[in-house]
Amino acid sequence: MTYCVGVLLDSGLVLASDSRTNAGVDHIGTFRKMTVFERPGDRVLVMLSSGNLSVTQSVVNLLEQWTNESRDNLWNAPSMYQATCLVGEALREVQKRDGPYLMPHNIDTTAGFILGGQIAGQKHQLFNIYAQGNFIEATQDTPFFQNGELKYGKPILDRIITSSTSMAEAAKCVLVSFDSTMRSNISIGLPIDLLCYERDSLKVGMHRRFGVNDPYFDIICRQWDVGLKRLFSELPDPT
Amino acid sequence: MTYCVGVLLDSGLVLASDSRTNAGVDHIGTFRKMTVFERPGDRVLVMLSSGNLSVTQSVVNLLEQWTNESRDNLWNAPSMYQATCLVGEALREVQKRDGPYLMPHNIDTTAGFILGGQIAGQKHQLFNIYAQGNFIEATQDTPFFQNGELKYGKPILDRIITSSTSMAEAAKCVLVSFDSTMRSNISIGLPIDLLCYERDSLKVGMHRRFGVNDPYFDIICRQWDVGLKRLFSELPDPT
Repeated sequence: MTYCVGVLLDSGLVLASDSRTNAGVDHIGTFRKMTVFERPGDRVLVMLSSGNLSVTQSVVNLLEQWTNESRDNLWNAPSMYQATCLVGEALREVQKRDGPYLMPHNIDTTAGFILGGQIAGQKHQLFNIYAQGNFIEATQDTPFFQNGELKYGKPILDRIITSSTSMAEAAKCVLVSFDSTMRSNISIGLPIDLLCYERDSLKVGMHRRFGVNDPYFDIICRQWDVGLKRLFSELPDPT
Repeated sequence: MTYCVGVLLDSGLVLASDSRTNAGVDHIGTFRKMTVFERPGDRVLVMLSSGNLSVTQSVVNLLEQWTNESRDNLWNAPSMYQATCLVGEALREVQKRDGPYLMPHNIDTTAGFILGGQIAGQKHQLFNIYAQGNFIEATQDTPFFQNGELKYGKPILDRIITSSTSMAEAAKCVLVSFDSTMRSNISIGLPIDLLCYERDSLKVGMHRRFGVNDPYFDIICRQWDVGLKRLFSELPDPT
């Protein structure tokens, strides 16, 4: 399975994805689900993939292939909106090519993307691209998108994240959300790729991978667990 | 939708259910999903229902009808195991009667039950009865079952509940779990029915309904929210 989160803040973007894939419980793999297109000073685009791995990898490869062709592509897209259309178009093309061969075998070809970034002269934006290639955009009212195994980690995002949350707080909150998710679903797993993009910087900010025994991730998971249990014990008992 | 939880503790049982039903977002109702069969000194059986309301209500009615017939029923079942078999049998009978009329209209007839209780001379037990009428039993390793919208509220149960948790703590934890669930899914709603059963008491213990503006539920929700935000702000920022 997959868990990925994209957050649209007044101050920029926070994006994160896990790395576990599985085709049944007896076939576990590790694949990076975050793809970055960066040309400092011009654009930063970050894609988070979820769903059928052969589909999402083909979409990324197709988008990269297009950048070598004289056609609309992610490097010359004039806006985030048009970049998002391109991801949807690539997804539709892969579904059209592979879908008819997979569907008769009841293989789920569903795939989706979260795309966040900024292109010079425009605002930073965050989109959620559905399996059919259509998409929605995050707003101040609904400043984050999740894909994949989203429910376990949603309550903490609901409580903390607003568009005015600082980038450090949002990054921390996303990591706590991953911790809750990984405790409840073993098909979500480390390493976590986390990327912060500061508005108008037009270059990738903090970009870290949190693997097993990462000192920072271990500290916040432990401190959160101990703190939650203390906080819980302080709640009054029912009478 | 529905959210219900049953917890098997060394010291007894805690069971809770919400009361919201919906047939589409434009058809919201309130129905109690907890049914209690109590004969003090002899037996306490508590059923939590989820799924198609016409199916679950028919199952409860059929079980009550059987108690007036000279046949195996919940009042003469010699064990929790046999009581659970009866619930499964009633569920299968309703599915057999109504299913063929509902399925052609693509109406989901899925329904499930959590059944907890104790019969004199036997241990207290907790069962999760699936839509097909088969069931599993809670153990010390896995001391709780959830039905319905289970994911939002599972992380806090995973962190707190073990079979040695006290009944007051477990009841508190279940209410916090309901709070998280209701914040993320509006199709789960108050009032919450909560019942505590103390092992070997053979009578219902605390049995409370938490509705809108319940002082205790309001306090723990507010204290939990404020505490979580403080705890979160104390976590170190990523660098």
